[in-house]
Amino acid sequence: MGVSKSFASDNWSGVCPEIMEALQKANQGHNQAYGELEDPFSIKAKEKFVENFGGDIEVFFVYNGTAANVLGVSHLMNSYHAIVAAHTAHLNEDECAAPEKFLGSKILEIETENGKIKAEQIKPFLQSIGFQHHAQPKVVSISQVTEMGTIYTPEEIKQLADFAHKNNMFLHVDGARIANAVASLNVDFKTLITDTGVDVLSFGGTKNGLMFGEVVVFFNKSLAIDFEYRRKQAMQLHSKMRFIASQFETYLTDDLWKRNAAHANNMAKILEKEVSKLSQLQVSQEVKANGVFVYMPEEIIEKVQKKYFFHIWNDSPKGKNGFKEVRLMCSWDTSAEDIDGFIQAVKNAIS
Amino acid sequence: MGVSKSFASDNWSGVCPEIMEALQKANQGHNQAYGELEDPFSIKAKEKFVENFGGDIEVFFVYNGTAANVLGVSHLMNSYHAIVAAHTAHLNEDECAAPEKFLGSKILEIETENGKIKAEQIKPFLQSIGFQHHAQPKVVSISQVTEMGTIYTPEEIKQLADFAHKNNMFLHVDGARIANAVASLNVDFKTLITDTGVDVLSFGGTKNGLMFGEVVVFFNKSLAIDFEYRRKQAMQLHSKMRFIASQFETYLTDDLWKRNAAHANNMAKILEKEVSKLSQLQVSQEVKANGVFVYMPEEIIEKVQKKYFFHIWNDSPKGKNGFKEVRLMCSWDTSAEDIDGFIQAVKNAIS
Amino acid sequence: MGVSKSFASDNWSGVCPEIMEALQKANQGHNQAYGELEDPFSIKAKEKFVENFGGDIEVFFVYNGTAANVLGVSHLMNSYHAIVAAHTAHLNEDECAAPEKFLGSKILEIETENGKIKAEQIKPFLQSIGFQHHAQPKVVSISQVTEMGTIYTPEEIKQLADFAHKNNMFLHVDGARIANAVASLNVDFKTLITDTGVDVLSFGGTKNGLMFGEVVVFFNKSLAIDFEYRRKQAMQLHSKMRFIASQFETYLTDDLWKRNAAHANNMAKILEKEVSKLSQLQVSQEVKANGVFVYMPEEIIEKVQKKYFFHIWNDSPKGKNGFKEVRLMCSWDTSAEDIDGFIQAVKNAIS
Amino acid sequence: MGVSKSFASDNWSGVCPEIMEALQKANQGHNQAYGELEDPFSIKAKEKFVENFGGDIEVFFVYNGTAANVLGVSHLMNSYHAIVAAHTAHLNEDECAAPEKFLGSKILEIETENGKIKAEQIKPFLQSIGFQHHAQPKVVSISQVTEMGTIYTPEEIKQLADFAHKNNMFLHVDGARIANAVASLNVDFKTLITDTGVDVLSFGGTKNGLMFGEVVVFFNKSLAIDFEYRRKQAMQLHSKMRFIASQFETYLTDDLWKRNAAHANNMAKILEKEVSKLSQLQVSQEVKANGVFVYMPEEIIEKVQKKYFFHIWNDSPKGKNGFKEVRLMCSWDTSAEDIDGFIQAVKNAIS
Repeated sequence: MGVSKSFASDNWSGVCPEIMEALQKANQGHNQAYGELEDPFSIKAKEKFVENFGGDIEVFFVYNGTAANVLGVSHLMNSYHAIVAAHTAHLNEDECAAPEKFLGSKILEIETENGKIKAEQIKPFLQSIGFQHHAQPKVVSISQVTEMGTIYTPEEIKQLADFAHKNNMFLHVDGARIANAVASLNVDFKTLITDTGVDVLSFGGTKNGLMFGEVVVFFNKSLAIDFEYRRKQAMQLHSKMRFIASQFETYLTDDLWKRNAAHANNMAKILEKEVSKLSQLQVSQEVKANGVFVYMPEEIIEKVQKKYFFHIWNDSPKGKNGFKEVRLMCSWDTSAEDIDGFIQAVKNAIS
Repeated sequence: MGVSKSFASDNWSGVCPEIMEALQKANQGHNQAYGELEDPFSIKAKEKFVENFGGDIEVFFVYNGTAANVLGVSHLMNSYHAIVAAHTAHLNEDECAAPEKFLGSKILEIETENGKIKAEQIKPFLQSIGFQHHAQPKVVSISQVTEMGTIYTPEEIKQLADFAHKNNMFLHVDGARIANAVASLNVDFKTLITDTGVDVLSFGGTKNGLMFGEVVVFFNKSLAIDFEYRRKQAMQLHSKMRFIASQFETYLTDDLWKRNAAHANNMAKILEKEVSKLSQLQVSQEVKANGVFVYMPEEIIEKVQKKYFFHIWNDSPKGKNGFKEVRLMCSWDTSAEDIDGFIQAVKNAIS
Repeated sequence: MGVSKSFASDNWSGVCPEIMEALQKANQGHNQAYGELEDPFSIKAKEKFVENFGGDIEVFFVYNGTAANVLGVSHLMNSYHAIVAAHTAHLNEDECAAPEKFLGSKILEIETENGKIKAEQIKPFLQSIGFQHHAQPKVVSISQVTEMGTIYTPEEIKQLADFAHKNNMFLHVDGARIANAVASLNVDFKTLITDTGVDVLSFGGTKNGLMFGEVVVFFNKSLAIDFEYRRKQAMQLHSKMRFIASQFETYLTDDLWKRNAAHANNMAKILEKEVSKLSQLQVSQEVKANGVFVYMPEEIIEKVQKKYFFHIWNDSPKGKNGFKEVRLMCSWDTSAEDIDGFIQAVKNAIS
Repeated sequence: MGVSKSFASDNWSGVCPEIMEALQKANQGHNQAYGELEDPFSIKAKEKFVENFGGDIEVFFVYNGTAANVLGVSHLMNSYHAIVAAHTAHLNEDECAAPEKFLGSKILEIETENGKIKAEQIKPFLQSIGFQHHAQPKVVSISQVTEMGTIYTPEEIKQLADFAHKNNMFLHVDGARIANAVASLNVDFKTLITDTGVDVLSFGGTKNGLMFGEVVVFFNKSLAIDFEYRRKQAMQLHSKMRFIASQFETYLTDDLWKRNAAHANNMAKILEKEVSKLSQLQVSQEVKANGVFVYMPEEIIEKVQKKYFFHIWNDSPKGKNGFKEVRLMCSWDTSAEDIDGFIQAVKNAIS
C-alpha cells in the first residue's frame, strides 16, 4: 500500500508512531466537541504551546497550512490592506489564490534569490501608504524555512519585525516547516519567534509527522480577539477537536518535534554530501533544513523519478550546462538506505 | 480522559474501532499527497462511492461539514444567486455566516414545523426571478436527516428535485447524518439520493464514527468541472489525503456506515420509549433517526446535564406547562446502560 | 422625451432646476479629481453637512444608495458580524444581495407590520453573542423613511441607538428619503440623527431632485478611519467629484432639500385625501412622507397603470375584498394636476 | 472656481458643452428608472453602440472605470481563475485591490517597457493550467491606450485575442482612453475592437468630456447572460439611468468622441514638440495619444507644478542625469495657450 519512499515532499510520508499512539489514547469515551472551554485535550495542548513560546499567546487549531496562513494574516488586516511577501512564498504562489479569495486583498511580491526578503526590499511599497488608489501595505509575511530550503536567523527576523512595527505593519511567519528551522538553528521556539517580535505564526506539524491540523499562534492576545468566529466562518473549526489537540500535545512533549525535524535535516545534509560527489549534479541552494535543491541533467530526471519520485522545481534550464533545478525533500522517516538507493539510481541513470 | 458519555451531540463520541484500524493500515510508507491521480487510497474510496451511488458521480474529500455544504452549493451558483432553505438549516443558522462569506450570496429562509420544506413554500421566491433588484433563487438545500431529527421520504426528495429542475434550480442535500436517514428508511443511498434527482450531496461521516473528513458528491460530472480549484482555494485540500480516503473506504465496506447508524437510531427509539413513560416529559418531534427532542421541566435540566450533558434546543418555553425543548442525540457508541443511567438521572432530578 | 408623469417611484422624476444650475456652475475649467484634499467643491459641500449635522462628523460621497448603505455598515463590522434589520429593509430585500457579497455577512430579519423595528424584536438575536457557530449581531439598520412610508420619531431612534450601544452594537440609518422624514417631522437633521445617537447615516438625494451621488455620514470620526480606501476598493470613488459635491452643496443651501421633500409629502397627503374619497380603494399604511400605499381592486390596476404607472407592492391579495396593495410615490415635481389626473383615471377605470 | 488648467490628468477637465446640453435635454418629465426595458434613452444609446461596434453586442452602463474593468472581467472568470496583465495596468496598480476584493482572484503581472504585453510573455503562466495549487489563467487584460501613453495596433490586439482564445482564455480591453486610441490610429471602433476578437471592452468617456458613467461592452451576447444581476450586486446600477445613457448617445453622435480625443491627441503632439526643443527635458515614451511622459530635472518640478500641476510618474531617478519621469496629460479642453504657458513656466523654472 502506498508508493515506495520518495523525495517528492515531506507530506508524502506518513504519521510517526508517537502521534498514532496519541490518537489511539485520545479515542476514549465522549469529549466536548469544537475544543470549547472545558475540553481537556485543548487545554493540555495549549499549555504545551505556552511552555514553548511563553505566556502571552493565543492558540487556535485549524485544518491545514493554507488556512493557518490565510486566517493568521486575516486577523491583522482589512481587505484594502496588502501583504508583502517573497514571490516564491507559498501564500503567493501555491494556494490557488486562497488569500485573494478569503481576504479580498492584494499580495505585493518581492523577487528573491533564495526565498528570503530584506527590509530594504519592502521600503518601495511604503510609498503607497496614504494614497487612496493603492492597496495599503500592512502585513509582511515570510516563510521559515523558506520555499527554497533557506532559513532566517533570529537577527534577520528581528530586523523584519522591527521594520514592520516601525511602519505600522505586522510580521507573519509561515511556519509549515518551523520545526526544521528551529532544529537547524539549534535554538528554541521562544528565541526564534516570540523574542524576535513576530506577531502571528502559522505553526505546522503535518510535514513533520502529524496526520492533520495546523495552528495559528498569536503573540499578542489583543490581536486574537474574535478569532473563533473567523475560524468558524472560514470553515476551519473541527468538531472532534481532541484528535488535533492530542497530536500537538504529543508533538510538543519530550521534543518529538525536534527529533523528527533534526532527523530530516541530517538526512538532507547526507544527501547534499552524496550529491556533491557526483560531478554531473550541482547543489543549487544552501542546505539549511530538510530540502536539497539540485541542478540535474534533463535526460536522467525521468529515469530517477521512476524509482524515487521528486519534483522539478524550475522548468527553465539553469546552472551549468542548462540543467533543470529539482527539489529533493527529506522527511522524519527518510533513511540512509533511501539516500543510498537514490544515489545509486542517479548513477545508473547517468551511465 | 474525555468526559463521561453524553447526549449532547453525535460528534462528542470518538472514532469507531474499524476506522481506527483503517488509519493504522493506511500509515505505511510514502503516498502521493493531495489525493492526486494515482493515489491508490483515493481510487479505492471513490470506487466504494460508485458502488453505493452509481457510476456518473464525482467525489471530492474536504475537511468538515461546513465545507461540504458551502463548497457543494458554491459550484451550482453565482454570487447573485440565492439558496432557499429551512430557517433551521445548519447552512443557515449554525455556520457563522460561512455561506454568505464564501458565496457572497443570500439564503432565503422558510419557516417550518419540523425542519422539512415543501415545494409550495419555495414558490413565492420564484417571483424574484428576472427582477434585477433581487437575488435569484438557484439552489434548494435540504438537510437529510433534518436538524429536528425528521426525515424526507424518497418521494418527498423527488418532488423537491423535480420542482427545482422544472424551475431551473438545483437540489442540494446536507447529508451530515445521511447514513442515519438511509438506515432509518431501510433503503440504499442510490434509491434515496441518486434516483430521486439530487444534484449535489454533502456526505457526512464524522457524526457516525469517523475522525475527520466529509465528502462532496456530484451526481452529474459536468457540474463538478474545476471543483479541485474551488476546494484548494477554499482551504479544504488535505495533503495526507490517504487518511481521509481510507476512512471512507472502510466506512463504505461491509455496511459499517449502516451498522453504526442503525445502532444510534435504535438507541434513540429506546430512549424515546423510556422518556414517554415519564409523565413529566414530552417528546416534541417524531423520532426518525438518532435524535430525540423532548420538552423538559426547566428546574431539572441543569441537574440532569451535570451527569449527562445535552443541549437546550429552544430557550423559549413551549409545549405543555411551558417546558423548554431539549435535544438528546444518540451515537454509534451509545449503550443501553447510558440510557438507563440518563432516565435514572431524570427520575432523581424530578423527585 | 421620457414618459408622462407617474407615481412609480421618486427616482422616475428628473433633476430639480437648482441642481441643474449647480452642475452648470461647477463646470468651469479644471479641478482636482477624486475630491482630494484641496478640492474646493468637496470642502464647501462638507461645510454644509457640518452646518446641518454638527461638527464631529466625516462625510464621504459615493454613487448610489446601495453603496451608501453597504459601505456605511461595512466600516462598523467584520464579516462574522451580522446586521439586524426589518425584513422589508431595502438593504435586505432590494440590493440583489450586495451586502452579502461585499460584507460576506448575514442579515438577521425582523418581521414588521409597518417597516419599523423595536428594541424588543432585536433581543432574541443577542442570545447568539459569544456562540462561535452563530454570526454575531453588531449593526442595527433602520430605514428612515421606511419602505412602507412610515417614520421613526426622534425618541424611537434614540431608543434603538441606546439599545444598540448598550449591547455593543451600532445603529445605521438608511436615509434614502431622510429629507422627507425630517420635513415631515418638522425637525432638523441634527435633532433627528446626530442627537439621537445614530452612528452612520446613508444620506440620500437622488430621490429628492439630484442627478446622482449619495453620502455616507459618520457621527464619530474614529469610525471613519481608512474609509477612503474602502470606498475606492468598492468601486465607488468618482473622478470628477465636483459634480457630486456641488449638488450636495446646493441641496443643503437655503433648505432646497426641505422644499423638495415637503412638496412631495404634501402631494402625498392630498393624494391620500382624494383616494380616501373613493369607496373602492383603501389606504393601507399611515401616510407620513411621500408614499401612499393603497389596496386597489385587481381589475382596475392595469387600466390605471397605462395612464399613470405605479408598482404593485404586494401580489398576494390583502385588505377588504382581497385587493392588491399598490404603492403610489409622490416626488418633488408631482403636481396637483397629476393627482387630479390619476384620480380621474381611477374613476374611469372603475366605472 | 476650480483650479487653473493643469496637465495632471484628463479627468481634471470638466464636461464638454455638447454633453451638458444632452443632460439638460434629458431632464424632461418622468422616465423609467434603472434603464429597464422600455427606457427610450437606454435604447437610443445602445443603438449608437451597435452603429459603432456592430450588432452582436450587449451594452451595460456602470458608474466608473474601476467598475467597468472589474465587472467586465468578472463575467469571464471564476474566483480560482487568474487575470494576466501588465504590472502597470490600472486594474493591477491603481484600484486599491478592487479586483481582488470583488473577484477574489489573483492578477499575474508582466513587466513591460512601455505598458504593452506580448503573447510570449503570457506563455509561462500557462504552465499552471491543470495544477490545482495554482490560480488558473483565464483572462488577458490590456489597456488601450496603455498607462504609458502607448497604443496597440489592430494586428497586435488580434494576436493577443488569438493567443487567448487558442488557450481557452478571454481578452479584455481597459478602454478608459479608447477614443484616444481609435482617433490616433485613425480607424473605427469596429476595426480595432470587434474585428480583432476582443471579448469584453470597458468603454470610457469620463476622461474625454463626460460627467460620469462608463460602459461594459460584450462582443458575444452569451458572455453577458445575467450581467444585470452582477451590476446590481456590485452597487453599480444607477436609478436615473437617462443621465448616463443620454451622455453616451450624444458622445457617439457626429463623432463627438473623435473630435474631443483627436484634439487632446494633437495637443499632446504639440506639447511633445515643444518639450523636445528644451535640451534639459527628455521625452521618455512614444507619444501616441494624449499623454506625454518626460524626464524632468527634479529641482524644477515643484516650481512648474505650482503653476501647472502634473504628476510625478516615477520617483526613482531615470533617464539622462537621473531625472524623474513625469506625466503630462492633455484633455479635450487643453488649449495652445495652456501649452505655451506650461513651456514658459518650464523655461522660467530652469533659468
